[in-house]
Amino acid sequence: MSTIRVAIAGATGYAGEELIRLLLQHPHVQLTCLAASAKWERPTSVAEVYPRFARQLDLPVEALDLGRLARAADAVFLALPHGTAMALVPSLLEAGKRVIDLSGDFRLRDPSLYPRWYRFTHAHPEWLGQDGLAYGLTEFHQEAIKKARLVANPGCYATSILLGVLPLFQAQLIEEGRFLVDAKSGLSGAGRKADTSLLFTEMTENLRAYKVNEHQHMPEVLQELERASETRPLMGFVPQVIPVSRGLISMIYAKTRATPDAIAAAYRSAYPEDRAPFVRVRPHGALPELRDVVGTNFCDVGFQLDPALGYVIVASALDNLTKGAAGQAIQNFNVMHGFPEAAGLR
Amino acid sequence: MSTIRVAIAGATGYAGEELIRLLLQHPHVQLTCLAASAKWERPTSVAEVYPRFARQLDLPVEALDLGRLARAADAVFLALPHGTAMALVPSLLEAGKRVIDLSGDFRLRDPSLYPRWYRFTHAHPEWLGQDGLAYGLTEFHQEAIKKARLVANPGCYATSILLGVLPLFQAQLIEEGRFLVDAKSGLSGAGRKADTSLLFTEMTENLRAYKVNEHQHMPEVLQELERASETRPLMGFVPQVIPVSRGLISMIYAKTRATPDAIAAAYRSAYPEDRAPFVRVRPHGALPELRDVVGTNFCDVGFQLDPALGYVIVASALDNLTKGAAGQAIQNFNVMHGFPEAAGLR
Amino acid sequence: MSTIRVAIAGATGYAGEELIRLLLQHPHVQLTCLAASAKWERPTSVAEVYPRFARQLDLPVEALDLGRLARAADAVFLALPHGTAMALVPSLLEAGKRVIDLSGDFRLRDPSLYPRWYRFTHAHPEWLGQDGLAYGLTEFHQEAIKKARLVANPGCYATSILLGVLPLFQAQLIEEGRFLVDAKSGLSGAGRKADTSLLFTEMTENLRAYKVNEHQHMPEVLQELERASETRPLMGFVPQVIPVSRGLISMIYAKTRATPDAIAAAYRSAYPEDRAPFVRVRPHGALPELRDVVGTNFCDVGFQLDPALGYVIVASALDNLTKGAAGQAIQNFNVMHGFPEAAGLR
Amino acid sequence: MSTIRVAIAGATGYAGEELIRLLLQHPHVQLTCLAASAKWERPTSVAEVYPRFARQLDLPVEALDLGRLARAADAVFLALPHGTAMALVPSLLEAGKRVIDLSGDFRLRDPSLYPRWYRFTHAHPEWLGQDGLAYGLTEFHQEAIKKARLVANPGCYATSILLGVLPLFQAQLIEEGRFLVDAKSGLSGAGRKADTSLLFTEMTENLRAYKVNEHQHMPEVLQELERASETRPLMGFVPQVIPVSRGLISMIYAKTRATPDAIAAAYRSAYPEDRAPFVRVRPHGALPELRDVVGTNFCDVGFQLDPALGYVIVASALDNLTKGAAGQAIQNFNVMHGFPEAAGLR
Repeated sequence: MSTIRVAIAGATGYAGEELIRLLLQHPHVQLTCLAASAKWERPTSVAEVYPRFARQLDLPVEALDLGRLARAADAVFLALPHGTAMALVPSLLEAGKRVIDLSGDFRLRDPSLYPRWYRFTHAHPEWLGQDGLAYGLTEFHQEAIKKARLVANPGCYATSILLGVLPLFQAQLIEEGRFLVDAKSGLSGAGRKADTSLLFTEMTENLRAYKVNEHQHMPEVLQELERASETRPLMGFVPQVIPVSRGLISMIYAKTRATPDAIAAAYRSAYPEDRAPFVRVRPHGALPELRDVVGTNFCDVGFQLDPALGYVIVASALDNLTKGAAGQAIQNFNVMHGFPEAAGLR
Repeated sequence: MSTIRVAIAGATGYAGEELIRLLLQHPHVQLTCLAASAKWERPTSVAEVYPRFARQLDLPVEALDLGRLARAADAVFLALPHGTAMALVPSLLEAGKRVIDLSGDFRLRDPSLYPRWYRFTHAHPEWLGQDGLAYGLTEFHQEAIKKARLVANPGCYATSILLGVLPLFQAQLIEEGRFLVDAKSGLSGAGRKADTSLLFTEMTENLRAYKVNEHQHMPEVLQELERASETRPLMGFVPQVIPVSRGLISMIYAKTRATPDAIAAAYRSAYPEDRAPFVRVRPHGALPELRDVVGTNFCDVGFQLDPALGYVIVASALDNLTKGAAGQAIQNFNVMHGFPEAAGLR
Repeated sequence: MSTIRVAIAGATGYAGEELIRLLLQHPHVQLTCLAASAKWERPTSVAEVYPRFARQLDLPVEALDLGRLARAADAVFLALPHGTAMALVPSLLEAGKRVIDLSGDFRLRDPSLYPRWYRFTHAHPEWLGQDGLAYGLTEFHQEAIKKARLVANPGCYATSILLGVLPLFQAQLIEEGRFLVDAKSGLSGAGRKADTSLLFTEMTENLRAYKVNEHQHMPEVLQELERASETRPLMGFVPQVIPVSRGLISMIYAKTRATPDAIAAAYRSAYPEDRAPFVRVRPHGALPELRDVVGTNFCDVGFQLDPALGYVIVASALDNLTKGAAGQAIQNFNVMHGFPEAAGLR
Repeated sequence: MSTIRVAIAGATGYAGEELIRLLLQHPHVQLTCLAASAKWERPTSVAEVYPRFARQLDLPVEALDLGRLARAADAVFLALPHGTAMALVPSLLEAGKRVIDLSGDFRLRDPSLYPRWYRFTHAHPEWLGQDGLAYGLTEFHQEAIKKARLVANPGCYATSILLGVLPLFQAQLIEEGRFLVDAKSGLSGAGRKADTSLLFTEMTENLRAYKVNEHQHMPEVLQELERASETRPLMGFVPQVIPVSRGLISMIYAKTRATPDAIAAAYRSAYPEDRAPFVRVRPHGALPELRDVVGTNFCDVGFQLDPALGYVIVASALDNLTKGAAGQAIQNFNVMHGFPEAAGLR
């Protein structure tokens, strides 16, 4: 099979670093360009920026330059802050590149949602919801991703929540479309930001809720649930950071009268083992631990019914940097290029 | 004011260690006996067992001996495994001692609940629910604790949950008595047990749910809510351990149509600042972090309404070893003896 | 005994926060002013800045104003960045205040050392080494501290190293004055700084050496060893950060032919139990753990001889925010004002 | 190239788990048997024991049975407690198997050292130092490993220390053969043992020295240094555990008068990039962090001279479970079988 020349824009953030780590092992990828902010005007060897990659990759980190990106690569991963990718994507697409965007800039179909959830007005609303654009929840949008020129890679919380409840919505097992999500994430999810609230001393032996019912991953979850089901979903969302670096688990509490068998069947139907290699559903009553998925591209889903209250508890765990970001992006890259879905991800 | 001679049985567990730390600063306490398991047949200086207490306390840790306990102390704290205190309490009470029991052995009024939740048959059912016995949720049972000879100190999860929702049940703000609790606890809550699942290497960078809807703190929560309200409460409970040593936070999701003001008023009425020195309720929308309470005897309560779903989110945080165990035990000791409620706890 | 009105300048750093925590419990202190950077132009309640202090202290954090400090307080703790205190101290002293400075600005007697180790030229060299100024290693300079108007509180590493080896230098047990220090510190030692290298995600599961043989605490260690002995000491210093928030341990490797008894005698002579309440020396072969001292004002010292190599290993452990900063500052405050040395520190 | 059938004995310890993780990715390995203690009398699927390996490996964990091992595999990795491998190895060798032993049972050539350092008398002293046995420090014993039927895989501390100083001893740069090692290890190094001193609550925010100058990895370090140089080395060793799960760094303080260039040359000569793919030596003054190597098979070595004291500081970092155990074992397996040295290790 052929080899694709690949560039990463945003190579110095946590998702960018994870993309490097994974793409180094990809049999069909040649990394050709690592771009970051203007601060890297003077190119610096990746081994200096990340000593862990010494001897494994001989490329400089350099300031982002669109022309350079387009010349160097056939496919581009964008791991940039929200609101930044938006301006770069059209040029890359016009230059015939395939783009996987890890930001939220192209996830929402309705441009009017951006001001409220992302605090910016979208610069290219004409691209939202277009045919060449796919929402990259790989397990649910294979056909669209195959044909896409641009994939909007889902948010880490959104991936975890959707992989946990979308099959239950599809099977119409959730009553009134109501559910609550109590989610806990590692701190890499907040990015490599010089922010005192993310210091080791602040977060060791701590837990902090933030953006309750205001997190920007909510609208993409609701959008996808609406697309997949007749119900109009109602979601409560309490994201929390805990003192781990990687890993995210969503505890989802959803109203249901379904039996364990009905729920297991819904998952089996959504994730046949031969076509969904990265979602592992457990038997009733076995909830995953974070450590079962950290460092992997798996999303582990467990569930337990609470008949007295009429609820199902779904625990959906993944590594926020892998299945929640760089890993799923590579999964989408594989689907786009016709490579085996798991190439470079085992 | 007088000084009380105090013994601790179970001095080598985490709650026992915290009792020592706090009682060392108590102005009206003289520690006279530290008892632990038969393993300590040969008394060993506390400074050898706990080097951190060197120079602060000159007492041996010794094997538990009922006669010795009774001779040495006027009041006894029992920080023993569930099922152990049960056998010791009657003799201590008959000897005229005041007892604060940190185990679950005397928390439930209905003896038939013990086999299901604690897996033992109660040896002294005649004591359960008696007049001289108080359930030691200090903020709600002051009068009973004042008169009690035996205080059943609440469980750590139970304290956190009850301080969060009892005022809302009392004010009849919770619809159908339904609520879910997604709780996260530090690992000291599991005790100083030689169990590989509690090793540093297993739990760093991990999160694990356990005993879903089967945790032994559930029946005391339900019992107290029933005593305080007309409703028959329905509770879902997902306890989880996270990689912190101390601290516990319960996220409580309860069905309500109340306004923020009504909820704030319910808390104000339950916790007047001059009579509930250790519960701090925050304004609507401000949820506590774990670090705000670790190492203190405070329980911090925050809440936020979700009008779309018709829920209130209550976050109730405390240190599981302090307000969730040793601190509340001392608070109860203070009330029993007529000392200022906060003596030794600031 | 009287009560002293006390101000803290630099109340929003980690040392400032620890000063608040400890001074709240001090029987002879009334906190009257919490000053910080210009960012706090609009005074903000301490409970908002530090929710953990809610209900315990009703004071605003406000922008530092010298006149306000002088009016509000009789004694001032300065917990400011290096190079900042220098400019404020003379005015405070002229206004008759007693000052405990936690920065390095007045620790070195030789002004020519500042440019090399601190990268600034000292603005008030006339104050260095003066009579009214004491180096606040409490255990060794009681008399000078009693008379001092200004105490230069030692650095955290310096305190740990000096309490470990100064007695051995005094007793002339170290050959050729040679020793190596391999020190490990918690991350609070680096301050509450918005620096990506201190993020939780960077430091969990990590260890990093820094400023090898270039750390600014070296010259004060050498200065004090020279003052106390005839030798000209030679020191190697490898400071390291480890993933803990508080606590510091120096492993000191010093050339000696002394016997365990001679070393124990040197420590006993330097730290008689009735006059050095906060240094605990262990028997030969028993090295302290970090957890034995965290949260306390103790410095625990252990030692073990290596006769084959002709070395003694000294392990000196303390809490960098307590005995290494705020606790020792209060110890010095107590000595200056004639209070019991341990007031507010148990 | 052919595929080798491989068994792991001791599959439920940390080194065994890491062997599984790595061998799953090895292009020339077929895992055929996972053996553990008698507790696994009833074979249990690996996915049940380690949910993280679900979908990746379909093998049971079963009780160790020598005949079964010999039938199932051509090569056997022994990841068993010290003193256990000793009894199994001769039968496996007689059955023609190749064996890589991760315990200390065959590391020392002098049987008289076992009682002192390992507290057992060696059952098969005739095997120690024989031709078919190699000490598996891959970078230094390639030829012997190629021919070996049994490889004694070095200890984690020993690997780190030897890779740091062996080149300097070979080049005769260390004076009087004297050096001190202040080493810090993650807690997985202590194994998956039900020991309260290894609990999360004991070790978070802690550091503990242990087995000072008595650790069992000392004699293998001394043995190898003597074999490689004329000097009789003198070593001081202070092993410490820090709150990380994986990773080990040895700070080595060695007497020298060498220049930076001479030291760099010694390393270049010992580790030519094309023949030592897993040792990365940094330029003078650049010491590695733990995170640069965790999860990899690299050993990163940095050094800095201290001319005043006449010392070189060598920092040698590796992942104790990878290069310090399972990774190096696979490196040795590769050399034994003529596979590329890095097969399965990138």
